Amino acid sequence: MTDAIKRLAVLGSTGSIGTQTLDVVRALPGRFKVAALAAGRNTDLLFKQVQEFQPAYVSTADESQDVRVWLGALGCQIIPMEEMAAHPEIDIVVAATSGTAGLSATLAVVKAGKRVALANKESLVAAGEIIMAAAAKSQAQILPVDSEHSAIFQCLVGEASPPRRIILTASGGPFRAFTLQQMAAVTPARALAHPSWRMGRKVTVDSATLLNKGLEVIEARWLFGVAVENIRVLIHPPSVVHSLVEFADGSVKAQLGRPDMRLPIQYALTYPERVANDSLPKLDWDAFGDLAFEQPDLDNFPCLRLAIAAGKEGGTCPAALSAADEAAVEAFLAGRIRFTDIAAVILGVLEKHKNVAHPSLEEILAAEDRARRLALEIIAGLAR
Amino acid sequence: MTDAIKRLAVLGSTGSIGTQTLDVVRALPGRFKVAALAAGRNTDLLFKQVQEFQPAYVSTADESQDVRVWLGALGCQIIPMEEMAAHPEIDIVVAATSGTAGLSATLAVVKAGKRVALANKESLVAAGEIIMAAAAKSQAQILPVDSEHSAIFQCLVGEASPPRRIILTASGGPFRAFTLQQMAAVTPARALAHPSWRMGRKVTVDSATLLNKGLEVIEARWLFGVAVENIRVLIHPPSVVHSLVEFADGSVKAQLGRPDMRLPIQYALTYPERVANDSLPKLDWDAFGDLAFEQPDLDNFPCLRLAIAAGKEGGTCPAALSAADEAAVEAFLAGRIRFTDIAAVILGVLEKHKNVAHPSLEEILAAEDRARRLALEIIAGLAR
Repeated sequence: MTDAIKRLAVLGSTGSIGTQTLDVVRALPGRFKVAALAAGRNTDLLFKQVQEFQPAYVSTADESQDVRVWLGALGCQIIPMEEMAAHPEIDIVVAATSGTAGLSATLAVVKAGKRVALANKESLVAAGEIIMAAAAKSQAQILPVDSEHSAIFQCLVGEASPPRRIILTASGGPFRAFTLQQMAAVTPARALAHPSWRMGRKVTVDSATLLNKGLEVIEARWLFGVAVENIRVLIHPPSVVHSLVEFADGSVKAQLGRPDMRLPIQYALTYPERVANDSLPKLDWDAFGDLAFEQPDLDNFPCLRLAIAAGKEGGTCPAALSAADEAAVEAFLAGRIRFTDIAAVILGVLEKHKNVAHPSLEEILAAEDRARRLALEIIAGLAR
Repeated sequence: MTDAIKRLAVLGSTGSIGTQTLDVVRALPGRFKVAALAAGRNTDLLFKQVQEFQPAYVSTADESQDVRVWLGALGCQIIPMEEMAAHPEIDIVVAATSGTAGLSATLAVVKAGKRVALANKESLVAAGEIIMAAAAKSQAQILPVDSEHSAIFQCLVGEASPPRRIILTASGGPFRAFTLQQMAAVTPARALAHPSWRMGRKVTVDSATLLNKGLEVIEARWLFGVAVENIRVLIHPPSVVHSLVEFADGSVKAQLGRPDMRLPIQYALTYPERVANDSLPKLDWDAFGDLAFEQPDLDNFPCLRLAIAAGKEGGTCPAALSAADEAAVEAFLAGRIRFTDIAAVILGVLEKHKNVAHPSLEEILAAEDRARRLALEIIAGLAR
């Protein structure tokens, strides 16, 4: 079966992970057939992708008559994203829709019991307990696409004993050495210029506040069954060591590579195989230099502290944090609040949050809704 | 079977690896029974070990009547080391006899088809082809005890694809920053003071010349089936990253830990399990700092270049190199030649060596013999 062509559905095909997934498919001809594409409102790019990959199934948020006619003329069947996940003609689903909106799609994918290359981190953050329970029931194989979680997954392959501790590395983002005062003056353009990773806009801002790293702590907690207390964050500006795992005997394993999302994407698609891909950048052993590590500054990066606290609290707390952050980042990118206000918005929301332990999906969605509304109120108060 | 007590034979029990193996056994009560001990001439320590662990079988190079009587009185049966390897009451053999003399013992152990915790590197260097063929035939499970090879083994666990490249790290030894002139004046006492590892005398000197790292390249070539051309050495003074493996997709895995031989020893005994052991030092994540890497200096450390060249040449070359080094290190420790003469002795032997491809055991032993005699001649010429 290893040699059979795998049929992919790419949910979120026009986003950063989606387009890089298609890069991997192009680089490994004969291995994958893109059988389904789901996109939001970037119809121009979706059309180009449909012409190139000729998927049988397409899902789009743009439901205009023109789009329907055009897709029909290309022989594409328009089906809802949730249907793609369960479709018998699909082997692997890349779940790369962004933000909290990805939750229902992710859940549908996990319930379908296929291999899931999971890039949507908000869904695990908000509903990790529900998603992991669904995966256990459906036997879905969740392969994380985040570089950090892919690193941990790779280090755990073949290990008979569970990890004792996880150490997530963070580049530290573009403002690692900034004072709080300097950070208050950060513009959206500045925040979007990440030193080492090519990512979507929201995750790039989240990387600059380190909120992203806090979300990853919560994700890791669910993916690998390690308590938040046993997950640490270390700042590692070279972005070469993607994360580390410590075992019961004190032995530590790490995964390294050049910072490029195509590697964890490809691994999620080819696992357990590793496939040569000349287009992927490799570490240069002739110039292999020093790997610097430092402790995160929780005073200057309060978002990280808030996310870790929400992860320890559990229940609907992470969902509220995630929704509040989404609204705050959007307001920051629109120039309505300052960079340092992002943490203030999240803190304001969490202070009023009424936590629900072991929440149902409805309770999670309700918590997100409340958090979003509350965040918008706080943003309105802060907006210049 | 995981819960059953494993019965160990420790060959070379009074050496550095042997005593540290017994430390691990003490630290994990109820897991192991030391059923057999084999030692050389350190009879005092062997007696203490016999009193503590009460093995059923003992092998000793000291065949005096006193020793026989004393061991008999303690209920120990004296049997040859080779017999221990094949004994049905033994589950795991720790092969930690030192030097080229360990070859026949290692071969007997591998042929017995048990799990072998292999610490004797000279045997793989001299007879890797024969030993790996014997292991394939007997289904012996070779668990390397060197920290570097254990690191690689740990990184390869569960991987479906073979490694593309191996990167062996080296502390660089105590003379990393020395000039050749400074090295010529190095005393045995100075060479025996290794900055990070607690090891036997010969391997400590080999670490200072980097010959040791060259032997490890040859070992890795056999253990992991990677061509010498695809094995690199990087100097890493902190001795935290114990080695790295690069896969076809460019992903790299590394194993890290505090420099302490008890970790790879324990892993070889408990594999695939990892067992908590409070006596093992752990990495301190609060103080986790920079990891420095640099390229090895092949001009100042000609032994490394000679060993890699011998590894590429293959045949009886590595055996000759290893035997020449053994004689040269002994002469250096006895104060007869200078530190920098070690490389000169090895070079002199290799220049006169007549290589035999795919040698038999007899041809290997003959090559070692010739190399040793030639080395002694060169040493006599150099001796002050």
